[in-house]
Amino acid sequence: MSYRLYYWPEIQGRGEFIRLVLEEAGAPYADVARESKKGMAEMMAILERDTAGRAPFAPPFLSDGDFIVGQTAAILLYLGDKLALSPKDEAGRLWTHQLQLTIADLVNEAHDVHHPIGAVRYYEDQKLEALRRAGDFRSERIPKFLGWFERVLNRNPKGSEHLVGSSITYADLSLFQVVDGLTYAFPTATGRALANAPRVAAVHRAVAQRPRIAAYLKSNRRLPFNEKGIFRHYAELDG
Amino acid sequence: MSYRLYYWPEIQGRGEFIRLVLEEAGAPYADVARESKKGMAEMMAILERDTAGRAPFAPPFLSDGDFIVGQTAAILLYLGDKLALSPKDEAGRLWTHQLQLTIADLVNEAHDVHHPIGAVRYYEDQKLEALRRAGDFRSERIPKFLGWFERVLNRNPKGSEHLVGSSITYADLSLFQVVDGLTYAFPTATGRALANAPRVAAVHRAVAQRPRIAAYLKSNRRLPFNEKGIFRHYAELDG
Repeated sequence: MSYRLYYWPEIQGRGEFIRLVLEEAGAPYADVARESKKGMAEMMAILERDTAGRAPFAPPFLSDGDFIVGQTAAILLYLGDKLALSPKDEAGRLWTHQLQLTIADLVNEAHDVHHPIGAVRYYEDQKLEALRRAGDFRSERIPKFLGWFERVLNRNPKGSEHLVGSSITYADLSLFQVVDGLTYAFPTATGRALANAPRVAAVHRAVAQRPRIAAYLKSNRRLPFNEKGIFRHYAELDG
Repeated sequence: MSYRLYYWPEIQGRGEFIRLVLEEAGAPYADVARESKKGMAEMMAILERDTAGRAPFAPPFLSDGDFIVGQTAAILLYLGDKLALSPKDEAGRLWTHQLQLTIADLVNEAHDVHHPIGAVRYYEDQKLEALRRAGDFRSERIPKFLGWFERVLNRNPKGSEHLVGSSITYADLSLFQVVDGLTYAFPTATGRALANAPRVAAVHRAVAQRPRIAAYLKSNRRLPFNEKGIFRHYAELDG
């Protein structure tokens, strides 16, 4: 049976963290809202249904038969078990999840740089505020987060090629994605931070070269980054 | 054996979600950094240690013997199992976690209203931006989130007294806390939203009246809300 991923059709966004896990595992899935207008309507109907069931707050969400789960980190917790992309021991499983939640914090902050006043308004309506926020994000937050992941890699007793244990987990895939997004959005600032986080940079390169991920990144299933998503390149916000 | 909670000593903050769970369960715990300067030093030492182990990115974190877990939602996932404050079935457990992650999104947004430009600067340095952000938060976001939790309560097949199943989970405790914080910070706007979310308001009242929670709220272990925390009352941001 095939998984059904529901996410906005025009952006990588938070859905991309799910896509990378499904792609790395070679799991069959439908990217429902991208496939047709009918798929988009199906997504909205699940969000709006009021009769019963556990409808999520927002995309992305995933269905596996009758079971539906929303919230990116919760979806990854679920898929990590199903697709063997998280450790089997409870402590390792929770540590992987903790790493994911920390990546989610960084993703939120990366989004809020271009939308400091709120997601319901256009960037152009909050550009001055974004310019102010971007400075702190570049000088304080990107180095702090990437520096922490560098330490996590350094301290992994099974080696610094992976965040957890000696094989790939969804946390490595998510670290790839956040570094990829930051590099798109803030190439200068991220390049500077990665120079001080060589192991993080190495994980980013290694994930991109995994056969299934490399094939995915070349395919048209991988949407390009753009200025509708979380990671947006506005030259005035980098530096 | 006693749990050790590590969090900033002067605010409820994200640590409060953990405290409520420990208090409801009657679990023994030390609120380490509040107890002494030595406790604060112990917290910082865990964050900064570079030799080995799985040091968290930031407070709150919790130790249970040698095991340490950070990230509020991950801590609750762990304690929910340990303290019987989440369902035992995997689907219910994941749904409870999904609710918690949605509450965490609302908490993040409530924080960013007074810090739209970044957490490293004072409110007074971003007051104009905060005024702009607060309008959208009051008119769009609070009603959207509380309306969704209202629907979750309505749709719970076991009754609308709890978010999940027929007994209390950490998600109910967290819903209490976010409603309590929003009511402190934005009394007018939150009152308006709660008028349209009577079941959410009822959960807030019912949790406050649970014997252990009522005792906790009256004790000096419950810090008052203040203008250093996540939920801050600035009259100019409400309305």
